[in-house]
Amino acid sequence: MKQITSCVLLIGNELLSGRTRESNLQYIAKHLNKKGVRVADARVLPDVHQTIADTVNVVRKKYDYVFTTGGIGPTHDDITAESIALAFGVPLELNETIASRIKSSTSIPASTLTNRLRMARVPQGAGLIENLTGGPQGFYLENVYVMAGIPSVLRAMLPTIEIATSTPVLSCSLEVLLGESHLAHELDLVQQTFQKVEIGSYPFSRDGEFGTSVVFRGTDTDLLIAAFEMTKQALLRLGSHPMSETFDWDIG
Amino acid sequence: MKQITSCVLLIGNELLSGRTRESNLQYIAKHLNKKGVRVADARVLPDVHQTIADTVNVVRKKYDYVFTTGGIGPTHDDITAESIALAFGVPLELNETIASRIKSSTSIPASTLTNRLRMARVPQGAGLIENLTGGPQGFYLENVYVMAGIPSVLRAMLPTIEIATSTPVLSCSLEVLLGESHLAHELDLVQQTFQKVEIGSYPFSRDGEFGTSVVFRGTDTDLLIAAFEMTKQALLRLGSHPMSETFDWDIG
Repeated sequence: MKQITSCVLLIGNELLSGRTRESNLQYIAKHLNKKGVRVADARVLPDVHQTIADTVNVVRKKYDYVFTTGGIGPTHDDITAESIALAFGVPLELNETIASRIKSSTSIPASTLTNRLRMARVPQGAGLIENLTGGPQGFYLENVYVMAGIPSVLRAMLPTIEIATSTPVLSCSLEVLLGESHLAHELDLVQQTFQKVEIGSYPFSRDGEFGTSVVFRGTDTDLLIAAFEMTKQALLRLGSHPMSETFDWDIG
Repeated sequence: MKQITSCVLLIGNELLSGRTRESNLQYIAKHLNKKGVRVADARVLPDVHQTIADTVNVVRKKYDYVFTTGGIGPTHDDITAESIALAFGVPLELNETIASRIKSSTSIPASTLTNRLRMARVPQGAGLIENLTGGPQGFYLENVYVMAGIPSVLRAMLPTIEIATSTPVLSCSLEVLLGESHLAHELDLVQQTFQKVEIGSYPFSRDGEFGTSVVFRGTDTDLLIAAFEMTKQALLRLGSHPMSETFDWDIG
């Protein structure tokens, strides 16, 4: 089955300035893994119309899906809708569905209403992404899905998007109290044996002891288990028993 | 004074799969802000030689500095040194300084030593980045600085790099218990008045109340203070007093 790929664009000066620690990519990646969609690319973009538009136009042709976060609120620095319209060469239009929701929500001063109606502007031809939190409205145009940057709102939006699914990206892992160098050779042999399994080696230090977490990632559980077992046997030959084994068959 | 720009490349399949939450960009951005170096671009890359090499070759011409994190350990998935060598079209060489440090460090089995010596290979012509933690060795080639992905090791490496400095990127901010829509119009006017100040508006919800954090970012403190004051006066006219004011003159 063909691998479905995606690119995540994380939009906002605050991510590049260090004011805010990025906190959506991990959630998006895990959610997409379950659908069999792999995040192949992720970029953090400043609040600059042309940069966003140019990047969108590169990645929407390269990947099956593009997901953006951030920049869809009511203030001057929320320029994602304008930038997506620029990328597709279409005008922004007032979406009547969103506009009527905003108008009916509460009694608000006229000036505030004008600002809030900025969030009702979507590129011509866009469909809406449901947002039950009542916050800013997401939308999509072709394969580009535009979502909020606020984590709680993003988490309400993403699961409502219907995504073409493929075989889920699964993983299993083990941890061993052995430095990476000590098992590097064995891991290399396992990787050569199982080329369809993506094997990652991640060092850790815990209570003053050095260890390695080995992650096996792929779409075929039989292959994952075989690579896992080959690694475990090699570790036992080295005199080290894994201190933990994890089979997260729904987390990539 | 010319703005110095940089790009940060965050390398590792684990960041794209969601296994690991990225945790270096914020630290790097804050560190560089103090030096007057702005992070203009950041990308998360998979462990794929050609992707890393191609990206490095695009961004090293576009920005003054490129900083990479991750992929310099001893295992098969540590391919950053190879990828940088590929980008520059130079071979990998065994660096005698690193090699002798590794050989002299402890008495280790021959197979482990071979693996650990992988970390002594750097692209021809590279200079070394000091690493007092004893972990993997960083290096630089022209304007590309290659660092570890483990946060504690990265934090030991980055401050040792001599970076051309410019006017620091500074910020001040205020928080007000008013939703973004209510101050969007006023903020827009302030932004139009102070085009050299980057004004960010970030909604928050705390104890069930909605508020907005407004951040003023730039290199000229007089302009930052003036934009801050214009905003504060506008908020007072709206009947809202800022609940906090922060002048972090060394945090961007």
